[in-house]
Amino acid sequence: MTDPATRAAPRRGRRPGAPDTRAAILAAARELFAGQGYAGTSVRAIGAAAGVDASLVHHYFGTKDDLFVAALELPLDPRVALAPAVAAGPDGAGERVLRVFLSVWDDPDLQVRLLGLARSMLDPAGQRLLSEGFLTAVLRPVGIALGIERPDVRMPLVASQVMGLILVRYLLRVEPIASMPAEDVVTIYAPTVQRYLTGPLPG
Amino acid sequence: MTDPATRAAPRRGRRPGAPDTRAAILAAARELFAGQGYAGTSVRAIGAAAGVDASLVHHYFGTKDDLFVAALELPLDPRVALAPAVAAGPDGAGERVLRVFLSVWDDPDLQVRLLGLARSMLDPAGQRLLSEGFLTAVLRPVGIALGIERPDVRMPLVASQVMGLILVRYLLRVEPIASMPAEDVVTIYAPTVQRYLTGPLPG
Repeated sequence: MTDPATRAAPRRGRRPGAPDTRAAILAAARELFAGQGYAGTSVRAIGAAAGVDASLVHHYFGTKDDLFVAALELPLDPRVALAPAVAAGPDGAGERVLRVFLSVWDDPDLQVRLLGLARSMLDPAGQRLLSEGFLTAVLRPVGIALGIERPDVRMPLVASQVMGLILVRYLLRVEPIASMPAEDVVTIYAPTVQRYLTGPLPG
Repeated sequence: MTDPATRAAPRRGRRPGAPDTRAAILAAARELFAGQGYAGTSVRAIGAAAGVDASLVHHYFGTKDDLFVAALELPLDPRVALAPAVAAGPDGAGERVLRVFLSVWDDPDLQVRLLGLARSMLDPAGQRLLSEGFLTAVLRPVGIALGIERPDVRMPLVASQVMGLILVRYLLRVEPIASMPAEDVVTIYAPTVQRYLTGPLPG
C-alpha cells in the first residue's frame, strides 16, 4: 500500500487553487461535518463558512464525498485502495478486502496516522464524522461498486467486525490478535466478512 | 438481568467513609467519566462536582484508577449473568451468549452506564483497565468455564466482534444495526461468535 498511486493526497487533473482558500475550505468542511454530520452539511454551507462560492468548492475538491475524504486527511483514499478488490466482484471479496485492510493497517507509518483517526471516533464530534460520514461517503459506495444486495445493511455489518478488529489488534493491542500474522487474521476473519457481504440476512 | 443475585457485590475490606460523601463522589465520578471520558476527567473536577476537596476523594478511593474502578460499579457481574449460557456447554453458546449480551445492553438504564465504560476504552488508561482487566478477569474465566479449546485465542476473537457490535449499535448508533430487533442481531452475529468459540483456528 505504499504505491504512490493509492495515496489520497494531491488529486491530479485539478488546479490546486490558492493555498489559503483550499485550507479555509478544508477547515470549514472539517468543522461542519463534525458539528452537523455528513447528511446535515451541504457544500453550499461549507463554501459560505469559508467565504467562497459552492462552485469553487466543487472546482477544488470535486464531489461532497471527495471533499469529505479530503477533510479526513486520510493517508490514502480507501475507495482507491479497495478498487481492485472490489472490481473482482462479490465472490471472495471478504478475503480480498481484508488483505487490503491489513496491508494498510499493518504498515507502521500508516498505522500511526490511522490510529489517531480511530481514537477520535469516540469523541462526540468524531463520532458523526467517522460513523455517519465514513459510512455514507466511503463504505456505501464500496458496497454499491461490489454489486452486493442491500449494501446499506451489509456494509455496516462489515464495519462492525472490521472496527472491532481495529480495536483489538491495533488500538488495545490485545494478544494474541495484536501479534498474529496477517495470513492468520485473514483466515479467521474472511469467512465473517464474506458472510456479511453475501450471506443470508433476516427479514 | 435485574435479579439482585447477578448484581456485582459490594466491595469488602475498605472503610466505607461517610455514606453521603462517598455516594456523591461516586455519582460525580460516574457522570464525569461517562461524559468527558477517562482522560478528560480530573479527580479535582470530580471533587468539585461532589462539593469536596480532591484530597478527600483520594482519601476515600485512592488513585484516579481506583476511583474509576469503583465508579464502574458494573450493573451486573458478567460472569454471573453469563453463567447459565456457559453451563450448557459450547454447542449453541454463541447464540446464548449473544442473547445475554443483548438483554443487558438493550436495557436503557444499563446501556447508559455501560456506554460510559465503552467510551473510556479508547483512553490510554481505560485501555488497560478495560481490555487487559476485562479480558483477564472476565472473558478468560468464561472461556475456561465453557470448556472450549484455546480460550486465550478464542475469547479475544469473540471480543473483537462483540466490541465492534457495541461500537456500531450503541455508541455510534449506525443504522440499520442501531434499531435492529435483538432477534435479528442474534441471527446475524451468532454464527460468527460460534465460529470463534468452536470453529477451526489457524496454526
